[in-house]
Amino acid sequence: MNRNAEILCIGTEILMGDIVNTNAAFIAKELTGLGINVYHQSVVGDNPNRLKEALSLAFSRADIVITTGGLGPTYDDLTKETIAGYFHRELICDQPSLQRIQSYFASIDRPMTENNKKQAMMPKDAVILPNDNGTAPGCIIESEGKTAIMLPGPPREMSAMFLDSVVPYLRQKSDHSLFSHNLRFYGIGESQLEDILRPLMEKSLNPTVAPYAKTGEVMLRVTASAKTEAEAEEKMAPVIAQIKDQVGEYLYGTDVDSLQQAVVALLSKKGLKVATAESCTGGKVSEALTQIGGASGVFECGICAYSNRIKQELLGVKEETLQKYSAISAETAVEMAKGIRKVTGADIGVSVTGNAGPLPSEGKPVGLVYLAVESDAFSTVIETHYGRKDKDLRELIRYRSTLAALDLIRKAANAL
Amino acid sequence: MNRNAEILCIGTEILMGDIVNTNAAFIAKELTGLGINVYHQSVVGDNPNRLKEALSLAFSRADIVITTGGLGPTYDDLTKETIAGYFHRELICDQPSLQRIQSYFASIDRPMTENNKKQAMMPKDAVILPNDNGTAPGCIIESEGKTAIMLPGPPREMSAMFLDSVVPYLRQKSDHSLFSHNLRFYGIGESQLEDILRPLMEKSLNPTVAPYAKTGEVMLRVTASAKTEAEAEEKMAPVIAQIKDQVGEYLYGTDVDSLQQAVVALLSKKGLKVATAESCTGGKVSEALTQIGGASGVFECGICAYSNRIKQELLGVKEETLQKYSAISAETAVEMAKGIRKVTGADIGVSVTGNAGPLPSEGKPVGLVYLAVESDAFSTVIETHYGRKDKDLRELIRYRSTLAALDLIRKAANAL
Repeated sequence: MNRNAEILCIGTEILMGDIVNTNAAFIAKELTGLGINVYHQSVVGDNPNRLKEALSLAFSRADIVITTGGLGPTYDDLTKETIAGYFHRELICDQPSLQRIQSYFASIDRPMTENNKKQAMMPKDAVILPNDNGTAPGCIIESEGKTAIMLPGPPREMSAMFLDSVVPYLRQKSDHSLFSHNLRFYGIGESQLEDILRPLMEKSLNPTVAPYAKTGEVMLRVTASAKTEAEAEEKMAPVIAQIKDQVGEYLYGTDVDSLQQAVVALLSKKGLKVATAESCTGGKVSEALTQIGGASGVFECGICAYSNRIKQELLGVKEETLQKYSAISAETAVEMAKGIRKVTGADIGVSVTGNAGPLPSEGKPVGLVYLAVESDAFSTVIETHYGRKDKDLRELIRYRSTLAALDLIRKAANAL
Repeated sequence: MNRNAEILCIGTEILMGDIVNTNAAFIAKELTGLGINVYHQSVVGDNPNRLKEALSLAFSRADIVITTGGLGPTYDDLTKETIAGYFHRELICDQPSLQRIQSYFASIDRPMTENNKKQAMMPKDAVILPNDNGTAPGCIIESEGKTAIMLPGPPREMSAMFLDSVVPYLRQKSDHSLFSHNLRFYGIGESQLEDILRPLMEKSLNPTVAPYAKTGEVMLRVTASAKTEAEAEEKMAPVIAQIKDQVGEYLYGTDVDSLQQAVVALLSKKGLKVATAESCTGGKVSEALTQIGGASGVFECGICAYSNRIKQELLGVKEETLQKYSAISAETAVEMAKGIRKVTGADIGVSVTGNAGPLPSEGKPVGLVYLAVESDAFSTVIETHYGRKDKDLRELIRYRSTLAALDLIRKAANAL
């Protein structure tokens, strides 16, 4: 039997548009994945009366209401108080929560002010949801077939709590489970991927195949509903095989978090080292690689050569190359990649140089980027144009260039 | 007199979490700027009954309801039909809109399918909002003191239409506006800041003072309601002065977007250059600085020295320093900062070395980070511990270390 849930986000900063409500989208997607219907999302400010009204309305339409926000230490954080009141529950101090908060402050070496104790006050008989990423615990109140799930507002804290505590809680109350695999692709657009796989996506009901676009890449989620994981795997195997058969060349990883994670894993497996020489990305490529624990095994050095002088002095780019072709050229990119390999002795050298904006530079337009990769087995240079109008064009160019550089490392590593 | 508006976003893809509802945030922020209160935001799917219910509810609480979505050509786009029905208005073909749609298709050189004509059907006597970025026009219905503003769903089309047509429409009906300043702080927690400023925040009604926390920093927004900007500034000045008086030492900028923006602006103003030497942050500090357009004027070079070998070869860190104190030590941090200054000739050299995890390294615990800054006027080294439990502890350590490094650059620049 299908259950209905409503998402009620609490926070004046959302109402005023100071932050985008990513929490609602995250929760909605997860609930959909659990087979729980969402027909309404709403947002109210830190106002007890409006919160109470919104709560009654939500419970008049759904049996599960999930709130985010208003669990913090400040006087305008009133979610627990209001919802506990709605269910005629008093708030009592939850010792384990209080201890967690105390040790949290000890760990970050900041004084715990009195108002933080408020966060350990929980509705009587509530299920406590520990917060591993912050101070405010969440909680669940069950009463007469109604379930109120209260989560903190900061997305990092909320999403972890949702996945760690709420998903298992909701699963255990449902009769079947969903299992999925995430296939990640680089180098193919969502519409192109959908075009190729539409027949498969349309005829697949269990497992379902759903695409999720993310800037510069696409993810396919294959989701099977089954009683056991083994049964789900059996259902998914042939579909995944067909996907790989049709678009496998763009698949960079299954159930990996990111392109950099796939790249670092590949380099580790092959015992290869990479070094980066960056201009317009300003260190974004090395930053991406070192996001991955254990990156030190495959990455020793990155040089961000933001000026021509540094490109010459540290990477050995020739003055005449800069003069003849400019810093934003295939020739400079190649010399940067060769240079960083020479300086570091890495198996793979990758470079990025281009114009991320805001203004044309060296007579080169915003969005023109050159990337080069150098290794004993595979060397290439690519020219890319990121022309799309975007209010964050600079960041978009840097981000897309970083993905392109990571993909070049992957190609070089595969060739070695 | 204050008016109330509600934002009602229509689209199953929002309900299911396939897209994040950036439209609500955009509209809310604009309305707030216009001095129009928003007490509720809601989302419903492409379902006429639920849309009708949501509409009645919204109009029972507010005199302006702004919808997004459901203006498109397909059969499930029902916003105009439903809202026109609510106001007992028939839909009639708007010739100018039809011509716009026809010429739009001509301009992109694609055939106009029959269902696109649906987009030119507008409620009788509605104010038409032309769409310069797509096919679906928006419209406004005014009836008995209630105003329904219907906007398209695609953010690009919606935001342009809002700024071009809706803002002037609403301005001309409003008698006062809100003006704010954002004060950004580093080095003090939200609860600590609020503890100090609580009396001020509670007694301030116009201007209001509201805190917004973000990982590692806090923002205070001071907002005044007034007829003119000058009048608002007059109201805000004494409050801002009192805030600076009480917590000014932590204030890094007013009306800036980020610490890196404040740092780059300060360096530009003083004509100073900074160079970075990073280990555990992996390029995150240089990446942050180069997010800012024009960073090339203050930043030439960053070296990510992830291994001891590179720390020695490129930064000149002494072997005995690494052996005696390890790479994760104040001594190494200082030599890295001195080294990068020497290599680049920058006015300020900043360094970060530490253990971002996941495992203890060189016998040093996860979360132990040393940062050093070197300049002619100001040099210091700091030891920090980021021990807090977090699913993204590694990223958190790197992020907080980056903020700390940027703050050190700021301190050094201020001293020069």
